[in-house]
Amino acid sequence: MTRMMLWGLMAAQALGGISTTRAGDTPEGGPLKVVVHVNVPEPGTQGAGLKNVTNLLKEAPDTQVEVVCHGAGIGLVEKARTDHAEAVEGLIRKGVKFVACENTMRQKSIRKEDLLPGVGTVPSGAVEVVRKQQKDGFAYFKP
Amino acid sequence: MTRMMLWGLMAAQALGGISTTRAGDTPEGGPLKVVVHVNVPEPGTQGAGLKNVTNLLKEAPDTQVEVVCHGAGIGLVEKARTDHAEAVEGLIRKGVKFVACENTMRQKSIRKEDLLPGVGTVPSGAVEVVRKQQKDGFAYFKP
Amino acid sequence: MTRMMLWGLMAAQALGGISTTRAGDTPEGGPLKVVVHVNVPEPGTQGAGLKNVTNLLKEAPDTQVEVVCHGAGIGLVEKARTDHAEAVEGLIRKGVKFVACENTMRQKSIRKEDLLPGVGTVPSGAVEVVRKQQKDGFAYFKP
Repeated sequence: MTRMMLWGLMAAQALGGISTTRAGDTPEGGPLKVVVHVNVPEPGTQGAGLKNVTNLLKEAPDTQVEVVCHGAGIGLVEKARTDHAEAVEGLIRKGVKFVACENTMRQKSIRKEDLLPGVGTVPSGAVEVVRKQQKDGFAYFKP
Repeated sequence: MTRMMLWGLMAAQALGGISTTRAGDTPEGGPLKVVVHVNVPEPGTQGAGLKNVTNLLKEAPDTQVEVVCHGAGIGLVEKARTDHAEAVEGLIRKGVKFVACENTMRQKSIRKEDLLPGVGTVPSGAVEVVRKQQKDGFAYFKP
Repeated sequence: MTRMMLWGLMAAQALGGISTTRAGDTPEGGPLKVVVHVNVPEPGTQGAGLKNVTNLLKEAPDTQVEVVCHGAGIGLVEKARTDHAEAVEGLIRKGVKFVACENTMRQKSIRKEDLLPGVGTVPSGAVEVVRKQQKDGFAYFKP
């Protein structure tokens, strides 16, 4: 009977292993993960979104946050246009990831060096928003 | 062979149990679950959101709905400011959960008794919106 | 031992089968899937949403996209009111699914023949937005 139990446990472990590592899963114990979708130009809405992220990190400090800026929202991470440089840089220091959409950058002639320090880029902001949810199991949040 | 079958079934049940209760799952047969994210002050948008919830419950009556109000959207559940007291209270009677963000309440000096009857609170509206999706498998809906 | 292994494998397969076909899953290898939620009347926002979809398909051509139009957003797919007939029809030809909400149509006296060619309908736009996420594992995207 012990061998059978062993097999049962091995099967359980194997299956459990598959389950817990499959993309899109959200194991109870893992950190929260969220993609914050910024596509609006209003500094007020952008600022509210940053404040939400700050509050998130206050209550759940190991939350993985990725802020995706594209279209009319890209100004949030542009040196010359943002109203929130300090807040963005402060959140980057706390581990929040900010990325700008290269499609939008091309269209608006924004160069990499026009972005706030520490801001990354992705080929497509829209794809990134979808991919984080579907492939990496992130929640969605629109400020 | 019967003992082995028994073990197989027990293992299957145990694993099945883990699978079906694991947060983030959406078993085909279960009810719909959705977190409605209200962070805008416009009564028209808020009202449209409540109407969406009403329509949801009309077509899928056992849908679990949680409406999270924070930031500029908290007025929806404030006695003194809401344009939709009756609609909110009607939906609460139908089992819809409404919660207000305690961060926002602190910031705007809103007390628990300033909220419509039956409205709950959560420490952080942003965390709640993320957690419902990630830990409880709710869909996201922004009116 | 071989029978036990067989049982183990059968149990594993059965459970694996349940796991991999369960709605809401996002196997690493599958195409991206996204429900685009259009409930705003502004042609600029609607157009930005269509452009996002175009960019999505450019980077990830086999993405399954469903655009759900309801409430104030239904104008996007109404012949008489849309500013984006060509773009919508072009995306439909590329395999994007557009659906209008029958609740909204009833309320605004919009008939099936008032919609752009190729646009489908669903009983409730809100239910559709929730169901695509929960039952079919789609990501959410609000332009």
